[in-house]
Amino acid sequence: MEQKRVLLFTGNGKGKSTAAFGMLARALGHGMNTRVIQFVKAQDGVGEMLFFTRFENVTWDHYGKGFLPSNPESPIMESHRKAASAGFEEALEALVSDEYDFVLLDEVCFALSKGIIPIEPLIDAIRKAPEGKIIVLTGRNAPQELIDIADTVTEMRMVKHGYEQGLLSQAGVEE
Amino acid sequence: MEQKRVLLFTGNGKGKSTAAFGMLARALGHGMNTRVIQFVKAQDGVGEMLFFTRFENVTWDHYGKGFLPSNPESPIMESHRKAASAGFEEALEALVSDEYDFVLLDEVCFALSKGIIPIEPLIDAIRKAPEGKIIVLTGRNAPQELIDIADTVTEMRMVKHGYEQGLLSQAGVEE
Repeated sequence: MEQKRVLLFTGNGKGKSTAAFGMLARALGHGMNTRVIQFVKAQDGVGEMLFFTRFENVTWDHYGKGFLPSNPESPIMESHRKAASAGFEEALEALVSDEYDFVLLDEVCFALSKGIIPIEPLIDAIRKAPEGKIIVLTGRNAPQELIDIADTVTEMRMVKHGYEQGLLSQAGVEE
Repeated sequence: MEQKRVLLFTGNGKGKSTAAFGMLARALGHGMNTRVIQFVKAQDGVGEMLFFTRFENVTWDHYGKGFLPSNPESPIMESHRKAASAGFEEALEALVSDEYDFVLLDEVCFALSKGIIPIEPLIDAIRKAPEGKIIVLTGRNAPQELIDIADTVTEMRMVKHGYEQGLLSQAGVEE
């Protein structure tokens, strides 16, 4: 029986979601059934989505509304909260179900840090997830409870970022 | 015309190669023609290889011999050097050619830091690479010259690693 694994990619550098997508590829290479739920992000048509949604054993949804306002009282925060809550319900179900070998919750840490979803039900679902399940969590500002429950945590530290140097977002790199 | 991009994933944490494979997926989502050359690693049958080598527009080779001895005078170092040199030649060609939109040199930094390949021809080939090419470099101990030439550099900092906690390498996670 394989172990349950919880991997967390956080920090301010490029590579958090990208590493999670690399893990998704690896899981697919082993024929696993996978579930991807994206928070915050609104983009359709980005490379990873175009690519992975071709495969039968990938169930992919995104529940983001894009750019989050910094003011938590902003009226558009409510639409973010609604979208995230719908995704969160799906996520909790995917975690505890036997259907998926691999569950990726992209930007979940960011959604948690913005307070648009609560952490307790997530910790609870991770604890209840069956043995052998691979759980991958991404996003900046990972809460300490997630760091504690994860077995592998990487902080992606930005040393240099293209946009600081005036480079535009580009297909195959940022998209 | 898209810009030439050079991305570097280094540091001691999990996620360097994995982020590069995520970028590969993204590039494939955009229909790019891709080239992957792996240094040092010897594994066949790992998930990423099983997965990505199914696709027509992925040309994937690995030139590693696995675990590198810490003593540079070790007699088996020679076989490592030979394997890496063959891969290096392919890499330099892929960088300057118009054939590939995306070139991933996995563990190239580690091979450089071990002195089994030289840095100057690599810097030269990166400079000569055509506009629009996406170049992704991974491996710990990235040399300063590569940090300087890259537009995006992330240090994957290990906060926690599964093996410290007695977890075994597992399909879909480490393999």
